[in-house]
Amino acid sequence: MLNSEDRSFLSVNLPFWEKLTASEQEQTVVYSYRTHYRKGVEVLSPGKECLGLLLVESGQLRAYITSEEGKQITLYRLLPLDVCMLTASCQIKNMNFDVTIETEKEITAFVIPTSFFHTLSEKNSAVKNFQLEMMAALFSEALWVLDQYVFGSAAERLANFLLEHSALQESDTLRLTHEYIANDLGTAREVVTRLLKHFSLSGLISLSRGSVTITDRAGLLAVGR
Amino acid sequence: MLNSEDRSFLSVNLPFWEKLTASEQEQTVVYSYRTHYRKGVEVLSPGKECLGLLLVESGQLRAYITSEEGKQITLYRLLPLDVCMLTASCQIKNMNFDVTIETEKEITAFVIPTSFFHTLSEKNSAVKNFQLEMMAALFSEALWVLDQYVFGSAAERLANFLLEHSALQESDTLRLTHEYIANDLGTAREVVTRLLKHFSLSGLISLSRGSVTITDRAGLLAVGR
Repeated sequence: MLNSEDRSFLSVNLPFWEKLTASEQEQTVVYSYRTHYRKGVEVLSPGKECLGLLLVESGQLRAYITSEEGKQITLYRLLPLDVCMLTASCQIKNMNFDVTIETEKEITAFVIPTSFFHTLSEKNSAVKNFQLEMMAALFSEALWVLDQYVFGSAAERLANFLLEHSALQESDTLRLTHEYIANDLGTAREVVTRLLKHFSLSGLISLSRGSVTITDRAGLLAVGR
Repeated sequence: MLNSEDRSFLSVNLPFWEKLTASEQEQTVVYSYRTHYRKGVEVLSPGKECLGLLLVESGQLRAYITSEEGKQITLYRLLPLDVCMLTASCQIKNMNFDVTIETEKEITAFVIPTSFFHTLSEKNSAVKNFQLEMMAALFSEALWVLDQYVFGSAAERLANFLLEHSALQESDTLRLTHEYIANDLGTAREVVTRLLKHFSLSGLISLSRGSVTITDRAGLLAVGR
């Protein structure tokens, strides 16, 4: 059960909170809890029971798949205010691929336990819709990663472009329009916008109107190769 | 509107038919239609309106993504009795990656138009659950393809193994247990089972108890490289 401060955090940041009935909101407050994990903890791993829906308050997590030989591919990162639904999806039919989600920094997060989350999602179609949208986002993200791994070039070029400009301007914050970057890279503005958004979701950069700030130089170097 | 023969096809093969109310079944019969496409038609393509849920009666389709430079990655194939939900998913929030679905052979299929399908899915939670499960399957499939492209080896080895044994036995039908294949390839039986299922869903082989039949030799050669 959450205290009033935590309840108010949830009410502001849980995407479907407004669509819950008053009694569903009360139940959510009763069943949810706030928790803390150290760095390096697997909150989702093959064969492990599903924790529940996670709403990240602080810290950072990484979702990845692992090859037979133990190699990893990062799918996405979770940052403060991100919601993770995969940690509540173990029982979904057809979810038959193993994803691991690990804390990359220590985190605090709110957990809506799996069984209660599913009761909620069966009763309230807005919650089920949210699940479907999250699953669609995961599918899109997986395709994006696939595209980048197989076809590569655009993300690599953008990462290198940002690193070069940062070196040139001797600053982490670059004032650049998407149009300008697109022209320089010889790609479409939409591609640049999508890549920048992806970099931002991955915690590599932060975006504000008309500027890009590098927040994870090592990560960007890894993308640039 | 479907005739009684088509209605009976739908009632047997539409996965959520039994979970529809009698009046929803009647509406589905009224709004759905049976259609035919020649080989090489894009039933889903970027920027095109969403046709609706497809239930394949005969023929074959291929779903793929395309790089900026026009290269393609096959995501999966649709065979008779398969249901395609992506062709009814254009309006789902967060579905922001372009997938093309093209007829590889001429097809006949039943179409439940997008707008009616969504009315159905809003009214009947079993339909929404079906959507969520299909989306989860797509996500899993995308991860599988990613795994194969990046890590490669297991599927390649299995394809080559099947082709070699087919040459050795001078037959398309091979009597082999998953255990036997796993031992030969030096991998886990579960991996072999998953790969065989994937090959089968992709139309490369057909499976029956204790035997594997090669149905698309060229496709298998492509996997084996």
